[in-house]
Amino acid sequence: MILNLAAAHIILTAALADAREREAKPLGIIVLDAGGHPLAFAREDGASLFRFDIARAKAMGALGMGADTREIAVRAAGNPAFFTSVAIATGGQLALSPGGVLLRDEAGAIIGAIGVSGDTPDQDEACAMAGIAALSHGAEA
Amino acid sequence: MILNLAAAHIILTAALADAREREAKPLGIIVLDAGGHPLAFAREDGASLFRFDIARAKAMGALGMGADTREIAVRAAGNPAFFTSVAIATGGQLALSPGGVLLRDEAGAIIGAIGVSGDTPDQDEACAMAGIAALSHGAEA
Amino acid sequence: MILNLAAAHIILTAALADAREREAKPLGIIVLDAGGHPLAFAREDGASLFRFDIARAKAMGALGMGADTREIAVRAAGNPAFFTSVAIATGGQLALSPGGVLLRDEAGAIIGAIGVSGDTPDQDEACAMAGIAALSHGAEA
Amino acid sequence: MILNLAAAHIILTAALADAREREAKPLGIIVLDAGGHPLAFAREDGASLFRFDIARAKAMGALGMGADTREIAVRAAGNPAFFTSVAIATGGQLALSPGGVLLRDEAGAIIGAIGVSGDTPDQDEACAMAGIAALSHGAEA
Repeated sequence: MILNLAAAHIILTAALADAREREAKPLGIIVLDAGGHPLAFAREDGASLFRFDIARAKAMGALGMGADTREIAVRAAGNPAFFTSVAIATGGQLALSPGGVLLRDEAGAIIGAIGVSGDTPDQDEACAMAGIAALSHGAEA
Repeated sequence: MILNLAAAHIILTAALADAREREAKPLGIIVLDAGGHPLAFAREDGASLFRFDIARAKAMGALGMGADTREIAVRAAGNPAFFTSVAIATGGQLALSPGGVLLRDEAGAIIGAIGVSGDTPDQDEACAMAGIAALSHGAEA
Repeated sequence: MILNLAAAHIILTAALADAREREAKPLGIIVLDAGGHPLAFAREDGASLFRFDIARAKAMGALGMGADTREIAVRAAGNPAFFTSVAIATGGQLALSPGGVLLRDEAGAIIGAIGVSGDTPDQDEACAMAGIAALSHGAEA
Repeated sequence: MILNLAAAHIILTAALADAREREAKPLGIIVLDAGGHPLAFAREDGASLFRFDIARAKAMGALGMGADTREIAVRAAGNPAFFTSVAIATGGQLALSPGGVLLRDEAGAIIGAIGVSGDTPDQDEACAMAGIAALSHGAEA
């Protein structure tokens, strides 16, 4: 299964809807393919200017390290020098905060990632999860 | 008039529809706000990996120089060393090919830009124009 | 309300005057528009060489995160790895110290930011505030 | 003689006044010290977003090569590959178009540079020259 634009739009639309339902602060949300290249992005009205860069660095960081940024952030708290050096070594492709979540197919293979930025890390990640749930639901339906 | 996400989606959706109607090659399409920050992006299935960067550099180049990239590309053909130096001085924010088009409000003020990449320059620009037409039509309706 | 050069000059002149009155160390002071692009800058005699970059990164950081750098610096103290990763992800557009302050119109909308660097964070921010006060006073007069 | 902020303001003010007198398109104008560090900058209302980067790259390019960018641009036309490689090697600190002019003291020593961008190269350079003339006049008076 390759993540295509239609699937990315389902994810993005559901994540945006979830954000409004939970009255999150204005977000930037990105979907990357398995190679880390942007498929779809939206920045809500009033979102601040770094939201694109941060959302992308969350999603790319998840792909780059092979783990959600929630787990990466925990590891970084215990070893900040290394993870900061990775952020520098990759030209800033890693944001050390929850909200970057891997997308997997039914077999568990990584097919992309979603990155969300704008509210608290927990809120950001919850919106990402809502996007992923919509894709799973659509695939099962 | 400030370009918001709803308007950016109207532009993006219309440009994508126009691309399929004219059977363009797979495209990357981006909408930037007046400050050059991403509002919305989509990359069609099969589009190659540079489409995000090229579409963004077309849209940003139009904003940065204050002219559509069709005009900039003509000027660059007569003065390549200067425009190459601008591309370098701006960290690669300028793509020297048609497909980057300024978005203006009713009074003519610049409110953002659209960038399209993936097919010929003429096809790319035609899709950009279809996106802009949809916004104007919506504003008039 | 769009921040124009005349308004930026009022802010810059007042901030510089305040700096001399409080006998601050030599400063660099920048005013950015809402998109983060420079409108006006001055570096006082004797100011060290990084003042431009730091002042700009304070102002841009405020715009990028949607908060004054005083607040961002507090948050960064509690979560340094994340904010360092944001500084890296944005190519160095975030300086984690007070002195970057958002400019807002009467309705509260962000219209730009001022960044000051050269003395202590408190002194830098006080000069920024003096600049903003001059703009407000001019708008009210 | 070291170029200080007061002198930079004289240059900048005169260049801006000249620009309005000759009805130039909206400009970005920068004054750099002998080390290439920004002293003063202004971007006129309506100037497009790259004006800061281009003006700076003109002024820095003049300092970096030890010649006005008018002369550098002529040399670049005859040897574009080399001058493009210099632009790349310096991280984009060279814009290959007139409008970057060295500032010299009475003995001919380089004390800084002015960079102007926004209109034609001839117009840009004429505004730069008006700024320099004001400084010379002030120094003589």
